[in-house]
Amino acid sequence: MEDLPGIAITGASGRMGQMLIKTVVESKKARLVGAIERKGHDWVGRDIGEAMGGSALGVTVTDEPLEAFAKAQAVIDFTAPAATIEFAKLAAQARAVHVIGTTGMTVEDIAQLAPCARHAVIVRAGNMSLGVNLLTQLTRKVAEALDEDFDIEVIEAHHHHKVDAPSGTALMLGEAAAEGRGVELNDVADRGRDGITGARKRGDIGFTAIRGGDIVGEHDILFAAAGERIVLRHMATDRTIFARGALKAALWGQTQKPGEYDMVDVLGL
Amino acid sequence: MEDLPGIAITGASGRMGQMLIKTVVESKKARLVGAIERKGHDWVGRDIGEAMGGSALGVTVTDEPLEAFAKAQAVIDFTAPAATIEFAKLAAQARAVHVIGTTGMTVEDIAQLAPCARHAVIVRAGNMSLGVNLLTQLTRKVAEALDEDFDIEVIEAHHHHKVDAPSGTALMLGEAAAEGRGVELNDVADRGRDGITGARKRGDIGFTAIRGGDIVGEHDILFAAAGERIVLRHMATDRTIFARGALKAALWGQTQKPGEYDMVDVLGL
Amino acid sequence: MEDLPGIAITGASGRMGQMLIKTVVESKKARLVGAIERKGHDWVGRDIGEAMGGSALGVTVTDEPLEAFAKAQAVIDFTAPAATIEFAKLAAQARAVHVIGTTGMTVEDIAQLAPCARHAVIVRAGNMSLGVNLLTQLTRKVAEALDEDFDIEVIEAHHHHKVDAPSGTALMLGEAAAEGRGVELNDVADRGRDGITGARKRGDIGFTAIRGGDIVGEHDILFAAAGERIVLRHMATDRTIFARGALKAALWGQTQKPGEYDMVDVLGL
Amino acid sequence: MEDLPGIAITGASGRMGQMLIKTVVESKKARLVGAIERKGHDWVGRDIGEAMGGSALGVTVTDEPLEAFAKAQAVIDFTAPAATIEFAKLAAQARAVHVIGTTGMTVEDIAQLAPCARHAVIVRAGNMSLGVNLLTQLTRKVAEALDEDFDIEVIEAHHHHKVDAPSGTALMLGEAAAEGRGVELNDVADRGRDGITGARKRGDIGFTAIRGGDIVGEHDILFAAAGERIVLRHMATDRTIFARGALKAALWGQTQKPGEYDMVDVLGL
Repeated sequence: MEDLPGIAITGASGRMGQMLIKTVVESKKARLVGAIERKGHDWVGRDIGEAMGGSALGVTVTDEPLEAFAKAQAVIDFTAPAATIEFAKLAAQARAVHVIGTTGMTVEDIAQLAPCARHAVIVRAGNMSLGVNLLTQLTRKVAEALDEDFDIEVIEAHHHHKVDAPSGTALMLGEAAAEGRGVELNDVADRGRDGITGARKRGDIGFTAIRGGDIVGEHDILFAAAGERIVLRHMATDRTIFARGALKAALWGQTQKPGEYDMVDVLGL
Repeated sequence: MEDLPGIAITGASGRMGQMLIKTVVESKKARLVGAIERKGHDWVGRDIGEAMGGSALGVTVTDEPLEAFAKAQAVIDFTAPAATIEFAKLAAQARAVHVIGTTGMTVEDIAQLAPCARHAVIVRAGNMSLGVNLLTQLTRKVAEALDEDFDIEVIEAHHHHKVDAPSGTALMLGEAAAEGRGVELNDVADRGRDGITGARKRGDIGFTAIRGGDIVGEHDILFAAAGERIVLRHMATDRTIFARGALKAALWGQTQKPGEYDMVDVLGL
Repeated sequence: MEDLPGIAITGASGRMGQMLIKTVVESKKARLVGAIERKGHDWVGRDIGEAMGGSALGVTVTDEPLEAFAKAQAVIDFTAPAATIEFAKLAAQARAVHVIGTTGMTVEDIAQLAPCARHAVIVRAGNMSLGVNLLTQLTRKVAEALDEDFDIEVIEAHHHHKVDAPSGTALMLGEAAAEGRGVELNDVADRGRDGITGARKRGDIGFTAIRGGDIVGEHDILFAAAGERIVLRHMATDRTIFARGALKAALWGQTQKPGEYDMVDVLGL
Repeated sequence: MEDLPGIAITGASGRMGQMLIKTVVESKKARLVGAIERKGHDWVGRDIGEAMGGSALGVTVTDEPLEAFAKAQAVIDFTAPAATIEFAKLAAQARAVHVIGTTGMTVEDIAQLAPCARHAVIVRAGNMSLGVNLLTQLTRKVAEALDEDFDIEVIEAHHHHKVDAPSGTALMLGEAAAEGRGVELNDVADRGRDGITGARKRGDIGFTAIRGGDIVGEHDILFAAAGERIVLRHMATDRTIFARGALKAALWGQTQKPGEYDMVDVLGL
């Protein structure tokens, strides 16, 4: 047990932070060694297990990330861009693998990770699910293999709280399809179809967004031609897959050279 | 064979007309007795089977509908509103059942059918498929049984030639859902979802339209709540179902009193 | 809050028992007043919230069901047949609604509930999900409306731990389809299709069982004819729907006369 | 038009033969130059278009295959193993591409094609649909990428006339999945699941067969893990895709060196 890689979790009190802590604790391949919150958070100084309403886990929530990272072999971080950039520097200093699930990072934000990646492994992905990353690869390949006789549609379904459409993952899949075809997604995206639209334009990539109930996230990529269809589908039914994907990345990173990686590298596709 | 009900088909040269003719000819429950085209059409005077590129069927295409209707027990008519109103008068005169699959009829057009229905049976429906009509009934019942904890979405898929979205059938299903809930569809319809939409509004009925390949027509009505979903789905895979539905209506009409009916009556739901 | 119906939960330490307790505690329409375990269970005498690893709920686990039932307006019971029969007597004595989700009850077991139902409301169902019960009703109606041109198949998917196939719910849906058609399920069930089967027999009802991952439970009833299909689908994605269905039954039972009911009554279909 | 590759069709009077003829005639990339039937068939000597009940196509049905092949750049052949072996020799003699969709060929039958493939291009596949061949490739890759945490199920649906289960294509997909995992399909195939089966065995590949209506052919490969699923789906909705796949192979073969190929080569995957 002592030999298992030690993991530190940032943003420990958040929904994703708590899920990451549970995932690490239940794993037989890693152990929890750190739980980080921002200065002034009322969980700081408490046992993380008790703060989460369960039994003690022997790890005290701290607002000193570097101290926590120094004891860890990897840091898993689903926070916000500014915090993630700071964490990247500290993780590099501690030579800990930095797994980044933070969303909304700009090109400039991402550029700031490069110096850190000279000293430590960074794995960053917009969606940590193994399945979605695999599906993205498949989408690119299928779009490349089939010509425009196959109309491409990206169909996604999410819970009724979601405020944007289509989902970021749907757009990522659409990008992969466009890449496979050698076109720019912006030139061919057909979104929000409604009313007298005219016939579908050959080569377009359509997007539709279904909203209802508590659907975690479902994505279909439809390739429809005369007489046949191919559908590549991913269904997420439990948010823990994102936590498990991040943990898998943390473990994979233990044996890699410093550098920037994504989930496609982790999957070895 | 001579005792089987005789059927006359209007718009005989069109795609739907030809399909109706094949359906009647292949049926063991009816026989073809008339094929009508407009004056000046170059099929007039030719054998309908030969005009369609096959072997002779012994029925000559005519531009005299009344003469053809007088020999028929039923007329099946997928033409245009103005023609249909004229045919209704002639069918009533001939005491033939008039099955109307014509779309795009206004309230005023429909009002003109009423006098004809005093003398003959009229069956009219926006979609002649047995399955869709059954699904419409189910949608109304389910929407009535479930409260707004269940988000309703109508999802349809059609071929890439279709010029409008959502489909007329999707709107018909949405109307049925709204009726079941006791609301006006116009007040709750959420169409063309795209961009920063905000969270889904409770009670809304969402519509999404998928376009691709040669999909004949598929409709899902999704009822999604926390932890469970119900889906009512119809798939049309062959346009002949619309022709067979019309023929079924023509046969059913033989034993009815004059009046206006729809496919729900034919199905006996 | 004091005026909300009080609920007692039997088998409080089990997976379903704990889920029921959470559901009642989180509900705004009921309050938890009792948690029952068998004599000798080490949770007896402890606060149920703490025993479940969380904070105290002010309800002590007891092995005296009658005492607990006397304080309750309803008892929710997912235990075993023998225990359920005893609980039915005590619930009747306490004039509490008895909601029974216990499975595996024989005809003889069920017969023993009748005397209790003279004094109190009993709601019993093999599947407490609103959606599945609604789907069962729909299946019967659709099977009645459509003739044998529509082949019926019941397709279910469950997690890889499930030891029997097809699921009890799939058989219940098959029974409903057979009833709708006026046939005996045993005469028409086609299960475990494999090898040289010959053509499908007209009128058969087929069953297929998919197993994989942690699928909670999905059921499709397919009606497939030439050129069209209808599918009635239920997806359970969270086991709490069974707990919420039971709670809904407990609340509904408050205003009913003594007697035996099922979820179809609760739904008011 | 004269420069388009000329195609000869064997078994011209059969359902598949007629579909091939229509496909070639409607294509803008090839022209029909031969229609072959067995000696004594009453279509021999007649114009193939007229024999099929339509207008003349200027190609007379012949029972002299070599003569027909000599005028063709490719032969498309969906007949029976013995006939196909003879046709392979004649096609090689005529240096025509031989596209073989004949099923049921044994290992010995296939061995007899090798000498012919020294002189001419042979393209042979169990399923000529582009989509299914692509799906087979994807299935192998995904099975390779994912470990046994993902349970694999192959689910197929076909029309009610089909006499065997699972379909040959389902088995082909199962083979691809087994190859991807580095196991023998026979060791892990789980077919005809019914009754008290026990929990699903880790590493198994399950098969289920749905039968109903006129479903042309649908195949799902499900990869189900805790919290997520991937589905690779193919739907054939029109048998002409098999004819179009064969024609595509015939055209592709024009620029290849002699040898044996399959649809994966044609697709260039």
